[in-house]
Amino acid sequence: MVKLLDVPHLVQYVNSIGHETFFHRMATCIEDDFKRWEAFDKMPRIASHSDVGVIELMPTDDGTLYGFKYVNGHPSNAQKGLQTVTAYGMLADVQTGYPLFISEMTLTTGFRTGATSVMAAKYLARRNSTSMALIGCGAQAEFQALAFKAGMGIQTLYIYDIDPAAIDKFCRNLEGMGFNIVKTTSVAEAVEHANIITTVTADKKNATILTGDLVKPGVHINGVGGDCPGKTEIARDALLKCNIFTEFTPQTRIEGDIQQLAADHPVTELWEVITGEAPGRTHDDEITFFDSVGFAIEDFAALRYLYEALGNTEYVQDIQLLSVPHNPKNLYGLLKGDAQRTDYASAIETCTRALNV
Amino acid sequence: MVKLLDVPHLVQYVNSIGHETFFHRMATCIEDDFKRWEAFDKMPRIASHSDVGVIELMPTDDGTLYGFKYVNGHPSNAQKGLQTVTAYGMLADVQTGYPLFISEMTLTTGFRTGATSVMAAKYLARRNSTSMALIGCGAQAEFQALAFKAGMGIQTLYIYDIDPAAIDKFCRNLEGMGFNIVKTTSVAEAVEHANIITTVTADKKNATILTGDLVKPGVHINGVGGDCPGKTEIARDALLKCNIFTEFTPQTRIEGDIQQLAADHPVTELWEVITGEAPGRTHDDEITFFDSVGFAIEDFAALRYLYEALGNTEYVQDIQLLSVPHNPKNLYGLLKGDAQRTDYASAIETCTRALNV
Repeated sequence: MVKLLDVPHLVQYVNSIGHETFFHRMATCIEDDFKRWEAFDKMPRIASHSDVGVIELMPTDDGTLYGFKYVNGHPSNAQKGLQTVTAYGMLADVQTGYPLFISEMTLTTGFRTGATSVMAAKYLARRNSTSMALIGCGAQAEFQALAFKAGMGIQTLYIYDIDPAAIDKFCRNLEGMGFNIVKTTSVAEAVEHANIITTVTADKKNATILTGDLVKPGVHINGVGGDCPGKTEIARDALLKCNIFTEFTPQTRIEGDIQQLAADHPVTELWEVITGEAPGRTHDDEITFFDSVGFAIEDFAALRYLYEALGNTEYVQDIQLLSVPHNPKNLYGLLKGDAQRTDYASAIETCTRALNV
Repeated sequence: MVKLLDVPHLVQYVNSIGHETFFHRMATCIEDDFKRWEAFDKMPRIASHSDVGVIELMPTDDGTLYGFKYVNGHPSNAQKGLQTVTAYGMLADVQTGYPLFISEMTLTTGFRTGATSVMAAKYLARRNSTSMALIGCGAQAEFQALAFKAGMGIQTLYIYDIDPAAIDKFCRNLEGMGFNIVKTTSVAEAVEHANIITTVTADKKNATILTGDLVKPGVHINGVGGDCPGKTEIARDALLKCNIFTEFTPQTRIEGDIQQLAADHPVTELWEVITGEAPGRTHDDEITFFDSVGFAIEDFAALRYLYEALGNTEYVQDIQLLSVPHNPKNLYGLLKGDAQRTDYASAIETCTRALNV
């Protein structure tokens, strides 16, 4: 049986353990997988472009588990009242190739993006950071806010969005959750007193919402919204002031804000900082920039966390997606009334033993 | 809601309309999509290799629907009592990127492979063909037999397998279904009187089960089992006697039996024959060879047939795989108790209008 985790059950689970606990556990899982970065098969994502958007498959595997995420990006969906980005994912057993787990990944991507951002900030931002500017109050904003509260204790948020309704929605959602939210009327005002700047805007264009004059010594920039060709947020003059960190550089050169820089502009991959192979922040006045675009290993880590935590609980349902006859040569027998084999899990080398959530 | 078609419901449906009818309808759908071959985005499949097998994603799209198949190939699974190959697939709406349909594709691949084989044979085999040699009685064998009965009225089968149990299984499964099955004790005996030779063996090795001396003028060879690097069935001297037809030549050069030939050995793509752009069989003594490896457009056609036929029936179940808040910017609201939007289907440009099953 393949295990299916749908949206209502994920929501139930996250609410049962608490959103900050969920962030903690997912971030731990992502950090564990960044520490074993070199164990992963890092394939290019496979993209199918149309005039209105893109559909991508993002696979990776660690030799034990194979995972991929299906994700779309359709800016025009917003006008139709639909999500710009939706996603789902799956895990399979590398030894047998059998699918094990299918999960919603729209909410999960929200969580893993926040968890990855705060993981990076823990290594790159000043340790005494207490405040964050949040530029953009759209679908990802609450996830960023909660991740930084869970991971770094950030409570003061200077928020800005061109859409007042988005600001209201954000404030309403986080009411009573221990934040000190300061509404601002410009990017300049939002970033003025912030130790960390998170940009998470949605427009697909070469935007320059954060210019060099706004970037002060010691700040850490968490650039989340600039994540595909032609979609940037940080001005080139701001980038040139930064020590830049990436997930998987070949992908970030194409999709990240550094698409504005030369192809050999020096950057450091985050996993190298996490494993101690490269320095992160070296002094308090340095300006650090995490050029986040989202990488398959983050999705893999999020999926294996969900699978390990929920695979044997009532949060998941069994679906008969696979044809498993008792005699492998008698596939056709299933059409003649043969029962499906349901005991095959024992024949699959159990992957979860190798997991370390 | 995403529609899910599982194995028991597919079996119910196929049995309700009859196996030959199912083959007819699927073959029609595949032929329709071969006729509009140039409308498809033909991406390379993305493969993840391990020491024991391969996991592949096979995407394609026609500008309206996007589809992919997840499929593994693990020869060692047979020793574990598992299928060597399992698969599932999905369709999504290109305009919004929203997933529409997830389906089992192990049985479906059996059907689409048989349907593609007989589609090719209708263009390439002699029209008065009445008999087929079937070399290999494994998981795909019954699908080939039924496809050729449904599509070309083939009733006489000369069968051969090195495994007597596979022969028994095959005969038992097709008992009372109108076949005249002749068991043979060698490949030579099996092919001696056959108008069509179908090879569908499972061993992953450079086998040469069909040698040049066994290939007589006028025969059509349907080579199904040689479908990945290092896995062939037809001897080079037999290939050199044939007019060779492929699905998607760049893939077949790597995966098909023609991996044994020069990279510029002349071949014709099947869609060119179907659209009339290239000749198929030109005279009765010609030896034709369809070097079948399986291509994404066949899976796409099979999926769209199932989606069109079953998408609005009780054979499919709704799964809440997608997070669809009423306000696209309020994804986090789903965690605060907001209901999922369930009326979004109307916002998705209905794809099925463009379908022509």
